[in-house]
Amino acid sequence: MTASDQPQPAGDIAVTPVIKRKGRVAAVAAASGMAIGAQAVPALEVTHEGIPGDRHAGFLRPADVRVPWFQRGEPIHNERQVSIVSVEELAVIAANLGIDHVEPEWLGANLAVEGLPRFSFIPRGTRLFFPSGAVLAVTDQNAPCRIAGAEVARHCGGKDGLALRFSAAAKRLRGVVAHVDRPGAIRVGEAFHIRVPEQWVWCG
Amino acid sequence: MTASDQPQPAGDIAVTPVIKRKGRVAAVAAASGMAIGAQAVPALEVTHEGIPGDRHAGFLRPADVRVPWFQRGEPIHNERQVSIVSVEELAVIAANLGIDHVEPEWLGANLAVEGLPRFSFIPRGTRLFFPSGAVLAVTDQNAPCRIAGAEVARHCGGKDGLALRFSAAAKRLRGVVAHVDRPGAIRVGEAFHIRVPEQWVWCG
Repeated sequence: MTASDQPQPAGDIAVTPVIKRKGRVAAVAAASGMAIGAQAVPALEVTHEGIPGDRHAGFLRPADVRVPWFQRGEPIHNERQVSIVSVEELAVIAANLGIDHVEPEWLGANLAVEGLPRFSFIPRGTRLFFPSGAVLAVTDQNAPCRIAGAEVARHCGGKDGLALRFSAAAKRLRGVVAHVDRPGAIRVGEAFHIRVPEQWVWCG
Repeated sequence: MTASDQPQPAGDIAVTPVIKRKGRVAAVAAASGMAIGAQAVPALEVTHEGIPGDRHAGFLRPADVRVPWFQRGEPIHNERQVSIVSVEELAVIAANLGIDHVEPEWLGANLAVEGLPRFSFIPRGTRLFFPSGAVLAVTDQNAPCRIAGAEVARHCGGKDGLALRFSAAAKRLRGVVAHVDRPGAIRVGEAFHIRVPEQWVWCG
């Protein structure tokens, strides 16, 4: 941190300035239909509604168990168009589960990135800029779910208890979800940069 | 703060737990056409696209000077469907400008709320729940702009230099912008509650 990176006071709230970093696209995957599992592909085309053909595409999505203040299935704003994980955190999940590796597509992730520490904590409002011009905006930390756990277990020959242990093993390591700010292609191997907005903590 | 409200460590990142608070709707206003100024109304109906007829309505919006990494006018995800200010912060802006008061509709705000301290710092991802069932989601802190400053000056008889001084006087007091998670009506005088999501600061 340089002096200008230090949090600046705003009244009694410390504001952390904008942060810029770079990462690399390690893998991209697309799902078809309603399955959680995705297939690795060389490039992903995103539109303003997300990934065409993906079950998470659309400006709206049906409310699920993650947002219990809505009725299941009612249409709400879609903050989950794209799911992004990091290679480094997948390795930690695998170690926590005692398995060799976890593939991003087992979790239904659309992108796996590398080079950004503690990726699951990249805050809401962060923009990811890709060489094609595509821009994603982070909307939330993702949370592990039992469906993803079952998929991991299936790929590991149904290893005993793996599905049940997944949520704890993947907590705060499950990446982030994002929406599409600007359409474009996202390709394996390319570098991208991120802009993390000002951050602070509001305590009421 | 009780013991359970204390930040919980997640690796080396401190996570502040979910916070719930209550506020009250002090005023609602709707704009018509492209003018920044809005008109006070008793109730505001919001849809998934925002406020019908408002220039900020839609799933997409044209990029503006706030997002200089886009070309002016290109369509991007709309995080600015609804603008919300607080009565307490408007009073501070007025005091900073040396004028008697600032009305929310001068700033093109759709809602003015009261009872929530340091309202402009309510973080991204916070949900506002209204009695009708309407739910708004905070997407960003709003920033003062020269157009709003000119409108304040116009309402104050073009008082010398007011428009130029507005940005500094309103910095971090300009409220937040939001999108609509669930449609419904928002009415003057009603209480609402908010759910602030987990918070942390990512430092790379």
